[in-house]
Amino acid sequence: MASPTLRQHSFQVFRDVPPLRELRRQLLLSNRTIGLVPTMGALHEGHLSLIRQAAAENTDVVVSIYVNPTQFGVNEDLASYPRTWDSDVVKLEQLNDELVRQGDSHGRITAILAPTSKVMYPTLPPSSEIDGDGSFVCITPLSRKLEGASRPVFFRGVATVCMKLFNIVGADRAYFGQKDVQQTVVIRRMVKDFHIDTEIKIGATVREQDGLAMSSRNVYLGTRRRAVGLALFHALKAAENAYLSGKTDRKDILDSATQITQKVLNEQRALQPSERALYEVDYISLADPDTLDELDVVDPSRGAILSGALKMAPLEESTPGEDCGLGDGKVPVRLIDNLILNPRA
Amino acid sequence: MASPTLRQHSFQVFRDVPPLRELRRQLLLSNRTIGLVPTMGALHEGHLSLIRQAAAENTDVVVSIYVNPTQFGVNEDLASYPRTWDSDVVKLEQLNDELVRQGDSHGRITAILAPTSKVMYPTLPPSSEIDGDGSFVCITPLSRKLEGASRPVFFRGVATVCMKLFNIVGADRAYFGQKDVQQTVVIRRMVKDFHIDTEIKIGATVREQDGLAMSSRNVYLGTRRRAVGLALFHALKAAENAYLSGKTDRKDILDSATQITQKVLNEQRALQPSERALYEVDYISLADPDTLDELDVVDPSRGAILSGALKMAPLEESTPGEDCGLGDGKVPVRLIDNLILNPRA
Repeated sequence: MASPTLRQHSFQVFRDVPPLRELRRQLLLSNRTIGLVPTMGALHEGHLSLIRQAAAENTDVVVSIYVNPTQFGVNEDLASYPRTWDSDVVKLEQLNDELVRQGDSHGRITAILAPTSKVMYPTLPPSSEIDGDGSFVCITPLSRKLEGASRPVFFRGVATVCMKLFNIVGADRAYFGQKDVQQTVVIRRMVKDFHIDTEIKIGATVREQDGLAMSSRNVYLGTRRRAVGLALFHALKAAENAYLSGKTDRKDILDSATQITQKVLNEQRALQPSERALYEVDYISLADPDTLDELDVVDPSRGAILSGALKMAPLEESTPGEDCGLGDGKVPVRLIDNLILNPRA
Repeated sequence: MASPTLRQHSFQVFRDVPPLRELRRQLLLSNRTIGLVPTMGALHEGHLSLIRQAAAENTDVVVSIYVNPTQFGVNEDLASYPRTWDSDVVKLEQLNDELVRQGDSHGRITAILAPTSKVMYPTLPPSSEIDGDGSFVCITPLSRKLEGASRPVFFRGVATVCMKLFNIVGADRAYFGQKDVQQTVVIRRMVKDFHIDTEIKIGATVREQDGLAMSSRNVYLGTRRRAVGLALFHALKAAENAYLSGKTDRKDILDSATQITQKVLNEQRALQPSERALYEVDYISLADPDTLDELDVVDPSRGAILSGALKMAPLEESTPGEDCGLGDGKVPVRLIDNLILNPRA
């Protein structure tokens, strides 16, 4: 039974599958189209931009909000992942107002799917162990590369929950952000290999004015780590410039990036603990767009994915009144970012 | 491009997904219903009985014929699995004639899906290795039990290919035989856990007059091994009788079965190599209907699954003119069978 307050929204909120499936059947029979935007909540402008794209291409948008436990490893931040239901709903209401103002050329947010874990994992409790039992989709070797090397259960969890969401919503199109580039590659592969009848659309990474890629986890950064973390974006930009200026060799492209991450880190190390933010480069990768195999040379007719991950360490010391972010600068933050090196004409 | 001869059938034959998806869309919009019967070909009366059931419950039946490589282990009988396309098609034509005679109360076989492996496994070649790469659905711990203990990749392959078939066909209902009872449990679990919008229907095991469960692999048995292999069915019947007479303890129920398999084996051992057929009992199991956990005591309100597997050894010697089956009695044959112990009212 829906709680009474849920009735006041401009969209329906679904906690379980059968009523959403009935809505989907009705939409299908009325020749309407469904765009699905899967999220874990903590909505930011990146999510809203995907929803706008979905509303431009479909009559009805379904936004799912579900913090999926199986994509968090046992030592990861499932417990501390930001959960902001009330402000998420406000943002979606405001966005629906905006969509109404745009008139009939745009669809609307019709439904929020916010399922319980018992709905998403009806039989066994969701396992975060790599050898844990359950019903899982595994996409290898893609899932072991890049992010998967540091987060062994991550893409199993992502593929599994997306397969469920796709089956539940039966969307014509599903929208993912370019920010999580390996996720887009894994999901595209899953859709192809399993003949899923949903078209995957990728929305451009939305960035802050200074270039930082938006992420729900950015709230943990605080001013100091946020500024230093920009090194990742700057490093990728430098590598992109090397490619755009005609370089195709791995070394030529990636050296431009690592010079920057190393320089910024050296500068930080020279500072006092109360003034600096340290990080570790997990990887800077130059990979094939479909296989994610590391490339020695970029084939200009195929292009490449340039991506990286930084582990921002907790602040060593803070100064009174400093904005250290949610968790007082004590939460380690993994930053990822990427740029697509497009094929050259 | 369809070969010209395929046009003469009363059903369409599809080798690829997009045209079948278009048919499905048309059927959906005309309020027709689809029953899917997945097979590996080598059709026998068991398959035909599932198709009849599907035609009684749907306007349109799709039969898939695909020998799925990923469910055969590296040492299993993929290469020798019977492939009988021409006689399969004749049987399906005859069945469609029969369905036409039954009038409008019954549906028809509308389509055969006979995909290539490149369609079913579009990215990586299908792997039969337990740690092979690919896009797979894994349902554990169910897939490790019973048949899975002897055939570690089997249910991963079955779940994976069925997920693909379900996505391709978008059937209202899919039909599986009770004969492969663990498969029915794994598929039901997959449908539940992944919220697949297809209802799973199980058809009763179809048996020869003497009780032998029909199987595509029975053609390899020959007269002698066929007669001896019946020990499995007789053993399960004896155990079923123990349950029906009020027994609930594992020992009381299973002892009735193993007494028979042991007695028949002893009798065979006493015969000459040219007269006998030997086997090994892989397992006789008394298991929970949902979890397949072995039971010490049957809860009469839940019932149980009684199942077993025999490995029929190759014949040691044959006599001239003897019917030794396809492969001259040299092919080892794994026989499986089961009986459902229904809950007591």
